[in-house]
Amino acid sequence: MSESNLRGINLSIALVHHPVYDKNRSIVATAVTNLDLHDIARAARTFGLHRYYVVTPLEDQKKLASRIVEHWQTGFGSSYNPKRKEALDLVRITGRLEDVVQDLEKESGRKVKIVATGAKGNSVNIAFDEMRKLLEDATQPYLLLFGTGWGLADELLHCADYVLEPIRGAGTYNHLSVRSAAAIIMYRLLG
Amino acid sequence: MSESNLRGINLSIALVHHPVYDKNRSIVATAVTNLDLHDIARAARTFGLHRYYVVTPLEDQKKLASRIVEHWQTGFGSSYNPKRKEALDLVRITGRLEDVVQDLEKESGRKVKIVATGAKGNSVNIAFDEMRKLLEDATQPYLLLFGTGWGLADELLHCADYVLEPIRGAGTYNHLSVRSAAAIIMYRLLG
Repeated sequence: MSESNLRGINLSIALVHHPVYDKNRSIVATAVTNLDLHDIARAARTFGLHRYYVVTPLEDQKKLASRIVEHWQTGFGSSYNPKRKEALDLVRITGRLEDVVQDLEKESGRKVKIVATGAKGNSVNIAFDEMRKLLEDATQPYLLLFGTGWGLADELLHCADYVLEPIRGAGTYNHLSVRSAAAIIMYRLLG
Repeated sequence: MSESNLRGINLSIALVHHPVYDKNRSIVATAVTNLDLHDIARAARTFGLHRYYVVTPLEDQKKLASRIVEHWQTGFGSSYNPKRKEALDLVRITGRLEDVVQDLEKESGRKVKIVATGAKGNSVNIAFDEMRKLLEDATQPYLLLFGTGWGLADELLHCADYVLEPIRGAGTYNHLSVRSAAAIIMYRLLG
């Protein structure tokens, strides 16, 4: 295994469906989107990440997400498109962020460092290049948080170890989908 | 307008639904995907691109794509989410790539340079950094081609002025969605 294959081995991603904001800045639980599962899993596999957690407290949404993943892991999809299976094998469906952290800490025996992301750029305390450097310590597990809806609730930014700088566009418009933002950030940190 | 706002002004994108390959490498016309319109339009607006063409020869698919775009440009969506309108204002639905080229050449009075993209890396003749440099000549219009399905037909790679290097992942797995690939490439060229 070449060195480049090891990059990303200590980085996981969590797509958070609660607590996040809606357009009126109320805290909500958003619905799971099929293409969030696929696109982010495929990018995570491409850039060599450890795991992709889909976090939703809603039982019906957990079931829906599990059914989609199973279709590609063991159902018809697994033979129809094995590359898709390889990507979706990274996915774990969980109810709470605490469970994600516990899962990673149990596995690694280390305290996980949480890295929040967001488009607004409030509370930012780490740049892409610094984060890229930190990831070189392969024994330290990191968890990147992405918010659905209108972004992660502030309480998640406050309890994170790091808040990553936002992706900057050409002007003031900055409304990437979470799928696009996650792809660019994985590329920026590991590509 | 700051200099950074001008970057991208000479770059448009075309999402090609025909001629592209299916998984058995047959030439097909793929169906338009709702989130391809949204995600790529939002990234194109974020990175300051000139226009986003959706190319499909199928009349029912053109109608479907037009209805989606109109919903956000002038329908309920335009007041519900004006930021989405700003992004989808970049979209044009066309039947053939020739119409896209004609449209851009009529507008600019210059011959358009076509830049094909792909994951396989065949026929590549330009790196990201070189392409980024070429884009600095704001009087020269460029058109980036992205393929849906299993990628652009070889005939499009052969008639392109440039074939851009692929995005490299951590290992041999390289199966980004077209939405993720387009986001990363726009970021790489203009971010």
